[in-house]
Amino acid sequence: MRAIGLMSGTSLDGIDAALVDINGSGLTTTAHLIDFVTVPLDDALKEQIKLACDPKQSTVPLICQLNVRLGHAFLGACRTLCEKAAVPVASIDFVASHGQTIWHAPATDPLNNSTLQIGEPSIIAYGLKTTVVADFRVMDMAAGGQGAPLVPFTEYILYQSQQKHRLLQNIGGIGNVTILPKAGELQDVWAFDTGPGNMIIDQLMLDLFKQPYDFSGQTAAKGKIIPKLQQALRNHPFLTLSPPKSTGREVFGKAFTQRLLAEYATEKAEDLIATATDFTAFSIADSYLKFILPAIGSSDIEVILSGGGAHNHTLLRMIAAYLPDGVTLQTQDDLGGSSDAKEAVAFAILGHETLQGHSNNAPTATGADRGVILGKIIPNPWSHTAYQI
Amino acid sequence: MRAIGLMSGTSLDGIDAALVDINGSGLTTTAHLIDFVTVPLDDALKEQIKLACDPKQSTVPLICQLNVRLGHAFLGACRTLCEKAAVPVASIDFVASHGQTIWHAPATDPLNNSTLQIGEPSIIAYGLKTTVVADFRVMDMAAGGQGAPLVPFTEYILYQSQQKHRLLQNIGGIGNVTILPKAGELQDVWAFDTGPGNMIIDQLMLDLFKQPYDFSGQTAAKGKIIPKLQQALRNHPFLTLSPPKSTGREVFGKAFTQRLLAEYATEKAEDLIATATDFTAFSIADSYLKFILPAIGSSDIEVILSGGGAHNHTLLRMIAAYLPDGVTLQTQDDLGGSSDAKEAVAFAILGHETLQGHSNNAPTATGADRGVILGKIIPNPWSHTAYQI
Repeated sequence: MRAIGLMSGTSLDGIDAALVDINGSGLTTTAHLIDFVTVPLDDALKEQIKLACDPKQSTVPLICQLNVRLGHAFLGACRTLCEKAAVPVASIDFVASHGQTIWHAPATDPLNNSTLQIGEPSIIAYGLKTTVVADFRVMDMAAGGQGAPLVPFTEYILYQSQQKHRLLQNIGGIGNVTILPKAGELQDVWAFDTGPGNMIIDQLMLDLFKQPYDFSGQTAAKGKIIPKLQQALRNHPFLTLSPPKSTGREVFGKAFTQRLLAEYATEKAEDLIATATDFTAFSIADSYLKFILPAIGSSDIEVILSGGGAHNHTLLRMIAAYLPDGVTLQTQDDLGGSSDAKEAVAFAILGHETLQGHSNNAPTATGADRGVILGKIIPNPWSHTAYQI
Repeated sequence: MRAIGLMSGTSLDGIDAALVDINGSGLTTTAHLIDFVTVPLDDALKEQIKLACDPKQSTVPLICQLNVRLGHAFLGACRTLCEKAAVPVASIDFVASHGQTIWHAPATDPLNNSTLQIGEPSIIAYGLKTTVVADFRVMDMAAGGQGAPLVPFTEYILYQSQQKHRLLQNIGGIGNVTILPKAGELQDVWAFDTGPGNMIIDQLMLDLFKQPYDFSGQTAAKGKIIPKLQQALRNHPFLTLSPPKSTGREVFGKAFTQRLLAEYATEKAEDLIATATDFTAFSIADSYLKFILPAIGSSDIEVILSGGGAHNHTLLRMIAAYLPDGVTLQTQDDLGGSSDAKEAVAFAILGHETLQGHSNNAPTATGADRGVILGKIIPNPWSHTAYQI
């Protein structure tokens, strides 16, 4: 089946649209990425989204209208993708759209456990004359979950192996890992944040070199480890916390980097980047050694790296050096996947499972009471497709 | 198929829930109303809805949370209905939910043509372990329509006749009529507002008798027509406008009644009620004589009355007196239907058509470019139902 997966993140980088051929279903699913595009959001739309996300400035007419405007933007991204890939719009069997999150407030009280994604899927369905699956997070929350993360399910579907334990390590701003034990079931999947990803490195590159990130890890490669800083970073309390655990900008963000720069002002810039890179590598490897290997053993382990950090060769070299021989490292790009398209592809697969009538959350990852079928199906309004209940 | 139809109107009177057995589909649809309940909204929820509808006070966290709280309220209404009707929840094949409109802004520009109904249907689906169809208006608007009125489609489905022209006259605050020509197709259906329904009568009853409405038309029956006022009312420009036309509180609301009371301050209260009732009756009959009968002829016409005004016997008598012999009058209650349950039943039927894969808007009523399948299908999250595209 040919699908388009759509994702628009809270960073407002643009609309990710992935054209994917999907075969099989459940554990036999294979997904072939045909093409991928990130369509930037125009400034007016970006401004409206920021207002809609603001508890003080958001209003009901704004949210109502933005739902429609984003629907048209998503439709436009699908058309752009088809044009780029030179495939006819009519060949798209369905679109799966995450939407734009404008509020996400998980809570243990069911009456308060809420999330809001907008970008009217009816507009996509009408414009492309196709079926759309959308609004995935609310059903997981109806089942008592946090509505996130949803990606561990598709990671399980795509990467579960009978021969190997697989660790899917994403290195975005924050590092997070999904553990797929060898020959495991969905309920054996677990996931947690390993610590900083590129967050500290990127902030230091900006402050010290006016660059957004350390291209390919070249700056870190030129520096030397600062032993005192290395030791101080390894004493960070997050590393000793047992999973499940999560972290973010409030722990390893700008304030953290500013304190670090103030204390180590006399050190060479390259050495600071090298030591920060070492810390990210160490925090990842240390998580494996402390929490994962004791649970699954230390052989037949394959780590698959994705996210921006997977392009940092110095970081990858450091991670490899910290890990025992039984652990092999690969990047998602090595495997023929695309780090950038990963989330959009994931939603295409989630939508495909919804259409198959398969439950497609990972309750051990979201905290839901049970597996449920996520999403709403918008029938192709130009067709006469019946739904047998 | 056994369905629950849910409607919660902007008047915030409560959640209407209708238990309906539906057989056939399309023009062969028959709907048998098993039970009906209106569950009042609690005060806190009512207050939150009012805030969410207010362009100045609404905020994204409020709307996000209210979506969840209303979802639970709708789920509760379904459970209350099943209990009242003594049917097991497990016997419900699907729920069709209109939701609570918090903003509706039809516009000719597609980027601005928007509406927002909330009350998370995933919560109903999870709680009842059933399929839900929801969010009907957005697809009609994606197709260029105004998202309203949606009821003419179900009126066509239920009342279209090969033997008779049928006029479905609703008498709420405003009067509106749907015309189903004998042996007509969906595209032959038309609808328009006839003028005031109970709006003037109710406001006068409140001002003159401190009562919310004229029970059974008893006050009007005691009064006499005031010829000067009768003539003045009949000169109202709305009566000469050609359909399609619509009116509302801004024309026949409180300000209109206040001007009337000021000018006719010396008249007897009963006489004012009688004359206002005569005006409603005349505006309905006059619409038929001016606009409908010239189009469909003056025989084999059956008028079916619904809404609060259908309980006003003086009004019904007056309407009958103004119409020629070829026109017969009945109330929806005479036919075994229920005026109060009408909209909730309509959404159950719309949801049923969605599940059958039938387009279920009436483009001649909403202005949509074409027929489309309205609504989003939320799969029963406890089942394994596949959707074949």
